[in-house]
This record gives sequence, C-alpha cells and structure tokens, in this order.
Amino acid sequence: MNRQLLQKQPKVTVSDSFWLKYRQLVKEEMIPFQWDVLNDRGNITIESERDDATIPTEKSHVIENFKIAAGLKEGHHYGWLFQDSDLYKWIEAAANTLALEQDEALVAQVEETIDLLEAAQAEDGYLSTYYQIDAPQLKFRRLFESHELYCIGHLIEAAIAFKEATGSERLLQIADKAIACIEAHFGKAEGKIDGSDGHQEIELALVRLYELTGNRKYLDLSVYFLDVRGENPDFFADQLEENDRLGLKQGPKPVINAVYHQADKPVVEQDTARGHAVRLVYMALAMAGAGHYQKNEKLVAAAKKIWDNIVQKRMYVTGGIGSTVRGEAFTYDYDLPNDLMYCETCAAIGLLNFSNELLKSETDSRYADIMERTLYNGIISGMALDGKHFFYVNPLEVDPQASALNPDKSHVKATRPSWFGCACCPPNLARTLPAVGRYAFTQKTDEVLLNLFIDSELAGEQDGKLYTIRQSHTFSETGRTVITVEKASSERLRLGIRIPYWASDPLLIVDGEETVADTCNGYTYVTVVSESAKIELSYTIAINELEAHPLVKADKGKVALQRGPFVYCMEEQDNGKQLHLLALTGTIRPRFRSDQLLGDIVCLEAEGELQVMEDEWQYKLYRVRQKPKAIPKKLTFIPYYSCGNRSLGEMQVWVDKEDTHV
Amino acid sequence: MNRQLLQKQPKVTVSDSFWLKYRQLVKEEMIPFQWDVLNDRGNITIESERDDATIPTEKSHVIENFKIAAGLKEGHHYGWLFQDSDLYKWIEAAANTLALEQDEALVAQVEETIDLLEAAQAEDGYLSTYYQIDAPQLKFRRLFESHELYCIGHLIEAAIAFKEATGSERLLQIADKAIACIEAHFGKAEGKIDGSDGHQEIELALVRLYELTGNRKYLDLSVYFLDVRGENPDFFADQLEENDRLGLKQGPKPVINAVYHQADKPVVEQDTARGHAVRLVYMALAMAGAGHYQKNEKLVAAAKKIWDNIVQKRMYVTGGIGSTVRGEAFTYDYDLPNDLMYCETCAAIGLLNFSNELLKSETDSRYADIMERTLYNGIISGMALDGKHFFYVNPLEVDPQASALNPDKSHVKATRPSWFGCACCPPNLARTLPAVGRYAFTQKTDEVLLNLFIDSELAGEQDGKLYTIRQSHTFSETGRTVITVEKASSERLRLGIRIPYWASDPLLIVDGEETVADTCNGYTYVTVVSESAKIELSYTIAINELEAHPLVKADKGKVALQRGPFVYCMEEQDNGKQLHLLALTGTIRPRFRSDQLLGDIVCLEAEGELQVMEDEWQYKLYRVRQKPKAIPKKLTFIPYYSCGNRSLGEMQVWVDKEDTHV
Repeated sequence: MNRQLLQKQPKVTVSDSFWLKYRQLVKEEMIPFQWDVLNDRGNITIESERDDATIPTEKSHVIENFKIAAGLKEGHHYGWLFQDSDLYKWIEAAANTLALEQDEALVAQVEETIDLLEAAQAEDGYLSTYYQIDAPQLKFRRLFESHELYCIGHLIEAAIAFKEATGSERLLQIADKAIACIEAHFGKAEGKIDGSDGHQEIELALVRLYELTGNRKYLDLSVYFLDVRGENPDFFADQLEENDRLGLKQGPKPVINAVYHQADKPVVEQDTARGHAVRLVYMALAMAGAGHYQKNEKLVAAAKKIWDNIVQKRMYVTGGIGSTVRGEAFTYDYDLPNDLMYCETCAAIGLLNFSNELLKSETDSRYADIMERTLYNGIISGMALDGKHFFYVNPLEVDPQASALNPDKSHVKATRPSWFGCACCPPNLARTLPAVGRYAFTQKTDEVLLNLFIDSELAGEQDGKLYTIRQSHTFSETGRTVITVEKASSERLRLGIRIPYWASDPLLIVDGEETVADTCNGYTYVTVVSESAKIELSYTIAINELEAHPLVKADKGKVALQRGPFVYCMEEQDNGKQLHLLALTGTIRPRFRSDQLLGDIVCLEAEGELQVMEDEWQYKLYRVRQKPKAIPKKLTFIPYYSCGNRSLGEMQVWVDKEDTHV
Repeated sequence: MNRQLLQKQPKVTVSDSFWLKYRQLVKEEMIPFQWDVLNDRGNITIESERDDATIPTEKSHVIENFKIAAGLKEGHHYGWLFQDSDLYKWIEAAANTLALEQDEALVAQVEETIDLLEAAQAEDGYLSTYYQIDAPQLKFRRLFESHELYCIGHLIEAAIAFKEATGSERLLQIADKAIACIEAHFGKAEGKIDGSDGHQEIELALVRLYELTGNRKYLDLSVYFLDVRGENPDFFADQLEENDRLGLKQGPKPVINAVYHQADKPVVEQDTARGHAVRLVYMALAMAGAGHYQKNEKLVAAAKKIWDNIVQKRMYVTGGIGSTVRGEAFTYDYDLPNDLMYCETCAAIGLLNFSNELLKSETDSRYADIMERTLYNGIISGMALDGKHFFYVNPLEVDPQASALNPDKSHVKATRPSWFGCACCPPNLARTLPAVGRYAFTQKTDEVLLNLFIDSELAGEQDGKLYTIRQSHTFSETGRTVITVEKASSERLRLGIRIPYWASDPLLIVDGEETVADTCNGYTYVTVVSESAKIELSYTIAINELEAHPLVKADKGKVALQRGPFVYCMEEQDNGKQLHLLALTGTIRPRFRSDQLLGDIVCLEAEGELQVMEDEWQYKLYRVRQKPKAIPKKLTFIPYYSCGNRSLGEMQVWVDKEDTHV
C-alpha cells in the first residue's frame, strides 16, 4: 500500500478560546497534578468510583511500580493490573501538549520516565509491572484481566505522540521491543498463545503505528488480534484451567462472561454494541481502521453496524454510552435510564475516535455529528471547569439524595471528585483535549473535510505542496464561520464543509459571491482553484427541543434542549429543588451570561411551570387522583458540560414537556 | 400483668372461597413440595434470587444438616447460615394447616422432624447446625451474620403454632431449652455477650411466647434484645476483632454497615425505616408488641414513628417495601422506583404483622388498611396461582428484556421461579396463608374489631363465656357484608366494623333497622346486647385512580388503579407490548371474567390511548420534538396479585394518565 494513503493525524493549530481554555487547564493543572499523583506526591484524596471496597484508593504507586520492576527499589506492586497505563496516558497528554508548545521542563520529565521504562522493560521486551514484580509465572496467562497488551497499546500511542511532538524515537523503540515480545508469544504457530487481551486497545494502537510507519507488520498484528477474538469463546477460561493444570499459582478463577469482553463470537459477527462499553468502542475503532487499510469490507461493514446500533439505539443524548454500572456496559436497544447510566468519560472518548475513524473511510456528516455530540457534551463534562476534578460517570440526572442513600445510584457522583482509584478517565481527557484540533479536519486523498467549527489552522500537503485552511467562527445570536484557504499548488483543492443539522438557513459566500449550499452526505463542497479563497458561512443556531425514540421509556413525555452543538440541563442552583416537578411549556430564549464560576456561557431561559404540592401530602403517600395544578415558572438551562461546577445540587437533562399551560 | 390481657391469636375459621383456595394450595402443593425440597427429594431446580454466584443453589440440604448435627450422618453443612429456619417455617406452615384440618400423616412428618431436632440439639440447648457442624469455636461469635437467634426465633414461632394446633409441647420444650442456652450466654452480667442477633426475629417470637405462656421472662428477654441493639454500634465488628484476638479461626471480616442491621443507634431513637427491610419490620413489630405489654410508651411511640415513616413515605402502592436490591433495603423518603424495587415477600408479610401488632394496642383502621393492602397485593403476589412458583421480589413493573439484559434489574424476575437459593419467602407464605383469618378480627378486652372482609367465623370468649361472630360478603357490582353475632353471655359485646376507605356510601342495617354508619378511627360500632344480632353493611366498591405523592419521581403523571382492596396492573397478554406507550384517558368499568389461568377475577376495562410510533423512528434515536400522536385503545387491567401467571411478558402497575383525548 502506498504510504501516501495513510491518514496521519492532521496538523492543526487551535486558536479557539473555548478550547484554548481546556488546553491551558491540561497544561497548567492536569499534567502537573497527574504527575504528582503518579509519583504519590502532594496531598491527594483518591476516591473509589464505585462502592467497591476492592478498589485501590490509598495511593497511585505508578512510578513506584516501575521503579520496583526496574530493580531500583524493593517492594510489591500496588494498584490495578492496568495501573501502568496511567503513566502512558500521561506521557501522551504531555506529548500532545508539547506538540503545541515547547516546554523543556516537561520534555525532561518525559525523558525521565522513558529512562525508567527502559530500565523496567525486560530483556525480551516484556513490560507489565504487576507480572514482572509479583507474578512472573503468569505472564500472558490471565489475559481476561491482565491488561498486558492493553497497556502496551497505550505505550504505543504515547510513543507515537512523543515522536510526533519532539521527533524523539526513544519511546518508540521501547514500544517496538514490547511488540516484538508480543509477536514472539502470540500467533497461530504451534506453542504460541492464540488469543487476545481481555481489554481491547492494542488493536487500535497498532493501526496508529502502521499509519506512522507504514510498516505492514503492525497492521497484520492488529488484524490478528481482531480476528482471533471470539474464535474460541472459552479462550480466557481455558487459560485459567491450563494454569491449574501446570500447577501455576494463580488468583481466583471467576466465571468469565465472554460478552463483557466481546469475545463470545468473531468480531465480524457482532452487530450490536454489547458488553463493556470502552472495550467495545476501542475494538470497533480498530475494526474500522484496520478494515479500511486492509480493504477488508467485512470488517468495516461490521464496524459500521456496531456504530449504527450505538447511535441509533444505545447512546445518550450527551453522546454518553453504557447504560449500567454493572460491567460498565451496554444493555439493550433503547434502554437508556437517566439515573442509572454509566456514560464513562473514556467510553465517550472512544466513541469520538471510533466515529472519526469511520469518517476517514466514508464521507458522511453523521460521523462528525456524533464526534461533535460527544466532544461538546459527554466528554468535556468529564472535567470540572477548574481542571482539577473529574467525572468518571457522566450522569443525565443527579439527585444528591439518591447518590448518597440509594446504593443502586452510588456510582452517580453528585460532584466531581479529584481523582479515582481507577484513574483511566482523567488522563484520557488530558491526552484528548490538547489534540482536539485533529477532529476539526479530515484529510483524504481527494478532499479535505471541515468537520467541526473550531477556530484553527490546518497545515496540509497536496502532492507535495503545502496549503493552509484557517477557520474562525462567531457563535452568538447567529452563527458565522469564515474559512480562508491558501495554497502553493495550482492543483484544485476540494473542501467539504459540514453543514451541521443544527445550523438552519445556511448561507454560503465564496469569494464574495453567494452560493447555494448544496450538501452531499452533510457536507457542502467548494473547489478552490486559485491560490487563495475566502468562504463565509452564516446560519441561524437552532434551539431544538429534542425528543427521544418512543421506546426510550425514561424519556417519555420529556425533551432535552440543544443549542448548536451543546446539550443543556437544568440545575437546582438556577431552578430550585425538585427539578422533576418542573415542566417546559413555552418559548425558549438564549441569554448570554458571564458567570463567575461557569465563565461566559449561553444560558437558555424558558417558560415553564411548577407542579403545586398541596399541604395534604404531608401525611399521605397515595390519594385519589386530582387534576394536577401548576404555577408558571421561568426555567433556566445551562450547557450540560458545565453542570456540577457549583454547590451540590440536583441536575436534569431531560425535562417534562407540557403542550398546554395550566 | 393479668394473663387475661394477653392477646393470643384469635381463633378464626375461614370459609372464604378466595382464601380457601390459598389454604388448599398450601396444604396440597406447598407443604409437600417444600418437604421434598427440605429433604432434597424430587427434581427441583433452585434459582438464585440475585445474580450472585455465592448463593447456594445446588440443593437445600436442610434435613441433611440436622442429621449431621445430630451425628446421624457424616459431612459438612451446606447452604446459608440461616438454612435451619426453612425447616422451622415449614413446621409452622404445617401446624397452621393442622389447626384447620386434622392430618395424621402430616402430624407424623412434623413429629419426625421434632425427633431429629431433639437429636440435633446440644446438651446445653444450643441449636444451629452450621456452627455445630463446622464452626463450634464461633458459636454466638459472629452474630452479624450467624442468624443463630433468628433461627431460634422461628423455632419458637413454629413451637407455638404446633402447640396451638395439636396441644403437643414437644417442640416448645426444644425451644425452651434453646432459650435457656441463650439466656445463659447473653446479658449484662460480666462475661456474658451483651448484644443482639444481626437479623431481628427472636424479639418478636419471644413476645408471642409471652402471649402464649404469660411467662414474663420471655418478655424481658425480648426487651433486652431490643434495648441492647445499637447501644454499642460497633458490637458486631468488635466480635470479629475479639475472635482474632483469641486466635479463633474465622471467615472474612467485612466492613459492617450498622444501619443495615438497624444497630447504629438505640431502637427508640430510630424514627425512619432504614436498612434491610425485613429486619426493620420484624424489629418494629417486636417494639410494638413488647412496648404494649410492658406499657413502655417510648418503645411503642418509636414503633409508630417507624410505621408512619413507612406508610407515609417508603411503601409501594402494593404494600411492598424495600426500594433497592443492594442490602434488600429501604433508601430514603419518596424513593420508590418501579423497576428497581425489592419488595420482598417476607418484608410485606412483616409489614402485615407489624400493622396487626399496632392495631392490637391502638384501634385505628389505618393499620387495618395497610394489613389489607399488603395481604391482597404484595403478599399473595409472592405465589403463583398454581401454588408452585414464587416471587422473592414483587415487581411494580416487569420488562422481560430488562430482567434478562440489564444487570441492574436482574433481580426482577419476569416470572416466578419454583424455588430460591435463599428460600425465606415461600415458607413464609406457607405459614401465613393458612392463618389469614387471624387478621380478620382483633380481640381486645373491651371490644372486638372486624378488620377485613373475609368470610369466616371468630370463636371468642368474653368473661369466660363464648361468643361467635360470623361474617360473609359478596363483592361483585356492589359490596355487601353480613355479620351475625351469637353469644352466651348477657354482657354487652362491642363490635367495631371497619368501613374501608374504598367502600363508598356505606349503609348499615342492624337487626333490620337502618343505622347511620358513624365511624370512630375508621370503625363503626355496634353494641350487641341480646343473644344474637344480624348486621348488614352494604356499600359501593370504588374504583380509584390513585396518584402518588409528587415527590415520588417514578410515578409522576401516572395512576395506579384500585378496586376494593385490590391494586391492578396491565399485562402484555391483554394489552400488547410496550405498555409504557399506553395512557389512561377515560372511564373505567369492572368486568367479571372467568379465565382459565387466572380464575374468576374482576378485570377493569378502561378507555385509553396508544402513542403512535412513526416509521422514521426506525433509524433515529433523537429528533426535534413533534406533538405526540395517539390512537384510542381499550386498556385491560387485572388484579396485581394475579400478574405473571401467563406467558412471559411486560407488566406495569403505574400507568400514564392523560387528561385529554388526542
């Protein structure tokens, strides 16, 4: 395959004030904070993200684990089996930050961890601190839970990011050595392990590494891990039996739920989103990417089927996925309870990347719609506006009483804690937020797509000649996006501009001339012939009352408000307690607000009503029904991502809709 | 205290066809079936009532455990720590059946188990097969989980029932010996254990034994266990520490949640229903009973506060209690989710008995209202109409998809299994149903109350003279209850007849003369002076659309139908799939139906509507809201207790209410 066709991450410089704020928080708050956590420095309270006493919350111990593995210290491993990946994600976050801004001190910190990784990695390339320190006899032998390949996947992603940011290949060499070790142990050949990791990740990382290097072996290994998954649904259980047969000392042998691992049947036969949500989207992303490069239509078609199932039947309006805490998993079509959901930040990030991956191979704004929905809602909601507190679970409804007193809802934190025992989400945010520009554009061989309205500049290359596409937008009463293209080549440049579903009456002016914004698959095309062009797109930003599919029981009779890409919610701080007694009845207007805590935001104010609670209810639980009485009440909505940043209180995305005033 | 004042169980013979059917099922199906289960005979599938791999489901092993404890067999204990109580409840069920009808073969079976119990009981009276067989060093040393006193409580209740049914005191002697053992080990004296059992039960059993014998020591012991509870909130945890200190081999030391055991503070300071629902109502029942006999106002007042909290804020419309499977527990005021509830059959039985206990000391029909609500709905729903299948969890809403595919709802069985790993509920039903007549009447020193309209005859005694009160009712289009009183004494007999809240326009005719049915605390009084009297009460049976308190989020905009004592529900078999798309819009009429499976029941037919689901929804999860469209649809409701007796399908108690036709 021609290297030309490999779609490396687009080089985009973001200048958008909304996103720069996040980039600054990552650089100034998250990266130093997480560094302290990884090194067990400072006074950090680690919270359990679930009410599970087995979650390690005493310390992080990540760097310490590597030091022990490297023989620099004595001691035992502490934390999750996947604790190593916290460091890899931190490196990726640091690298993505370094790609935007030089910082010698940060480079030095990363180099320091690379020294440590070099020291910790075994001769043969093996690297997993838990197994190196405490259970060498079980290397690659408890894959259902070991996360050994999962961690190497994150190491690969970190190595790629560090190479792209600094040009240094040091980390790539460690990754490559680890991959060689994996290749030596896994495969169809006699005596090798013919199976995959319990948590998908290496598959997608290998696709990324193939994109960077063009080295086919990485793609082949990715496809091997995809293909072998579910070939033998008992693979994970068989490993445990074999350990017993060999007399290896091992931990408990739980009943393995192959559906949880998406390993009960071959991946191409999986046409619904089942099991652990993060695993599913990471796997499907790899299917889309590997299938695309391998021209494996079956793999791509299967990935698309899964994507369709998610976005048509199993996704919250915030882009969150995972309807239950038990197994952090999908459940079944249209089962989207607002008070029980999981909606893990990592899963939304996975869905963003999965959608982006499909967009690379198929131009359709549906993918960009979902990228936008996840990014502006269920992903950034994962972080407090101070950059120091995080949601693991991104709720659609918060009732502090329920979180405190109903154990079914104890995983729904009413406010964001600062760190979690299972610390996958905060570093996942840290690596994603500085790289947000990548999603704004998609470069294809024959076209460039502008997906998201993020003020930024794409530095592209066509037939060896450079071009730049700059976009900036204003997004107040109405919306306006200005795009300028400059190119060195005389070749035509075909630019597809996504017309979002929430942009009504779009008006396109190309070099001063009004043009009909015809769309194809959700993109309107401008072919730039001359050396530069200026394109203006103006539109009305719709405020939509969304309703959910009638089979979503939890949302019957309710609406969720959306303005532009932002989903909205009501909070107790603006609307008082007992949000469920409120209903939307009339018109909705945007109001531009400068809030000390929430920053410059566009609120929505709506005519509504409040159900009256008569005195007789004080001593009654049930009564013969009377026609409900309500009084008018102004409702205030804030963007969903900004919820939970003030005092403890109720929150609701879906709100009752009444067609008639009472 | 005068023995005269002790309120033994009233002697009531039931002739009501509705209840005779249950009595027959208990005698012909449940008792023989449960006997087979206890003896591990026959081909019985035992289901786990929760998705918990630690629940023993291979066999019952109950009789086997006693045989091993008695030294008649070799082996280990199998099953729960409270497995012994299954046998005691079975004996109580058998005894309650024998009280109604002689059956020599059944007496022989019970006598056979008594032989076994005699053989199994230790010299000093100790009796708990698990600790006798497998952990003698831990006797009374892990009370948070041991259920040692809980089981003895059930032994006492069984002994009382067997004595009352047959006159035999054999079982009472075993119980008395066990109590002596407990008295020797527990108390304030130096060296004794100063604490209580993790699961309340012995407290109420001792009150019953006091009622039977008039022996004050039983009452004192009950009060001791009530008073000591929560005196030291760390009592259970301290025991585990002490075991370690003494070097005793013991099992895991979990973090003990004292609220779960209602042991975090003294019982008189507990004014809300918290923790494990069955434990709470068993405890509160004992508080009411012991407080009454001890004239301990504080104890009675605390019990009433708890009762008020339950019925005013924490009880489902079916009389079910327990809002979460996690801890099988209460949560907080007005938190009554219809799809997550626990509503254990045992807890509803506990609430029935708790209410009955309060009624003994305070004449107020509120207590009888709740007795009726539990009995006719959330209790009998626990058993299939075939007497062979049982609900542990009595759901307010069933969606077979949710039960199968959303693990948060896996405890909500869509149909009744035949037996459970934790088999507390079926035998609890078996002992309660034959004794249902007891709740129809309450005998006080100065009055007799007729609480429930159950065709039956009370054989009472006033100042040593016998009297009978017979009641029979018809309950079709309208209701009519005929009461005849016959007495030997010339003393006046004051009879209070409950006028249920669902009986409108009551008309009272006493000996042919129309009387105004004035009520005091919900009862209308007739004083019978002559040797006999005939009282006729006629009334309209209201069909009520009940609404829940506005703070019950799950029921907002919904109604539950009730006709007479019966709460109704919709099932898929009558109304099609997607019950949540239906709404009640118009009038409701009763229809008398003879159903092959459901028997002779009164259905309710109502004008309703079905929300139309447009084709475009096929590929969409969210859209800009359109005004909902609906088509008229007739809705059919069946009594709640009869749900789940046909094929697998959806069920819903609460149904959307629309005030206007679309």
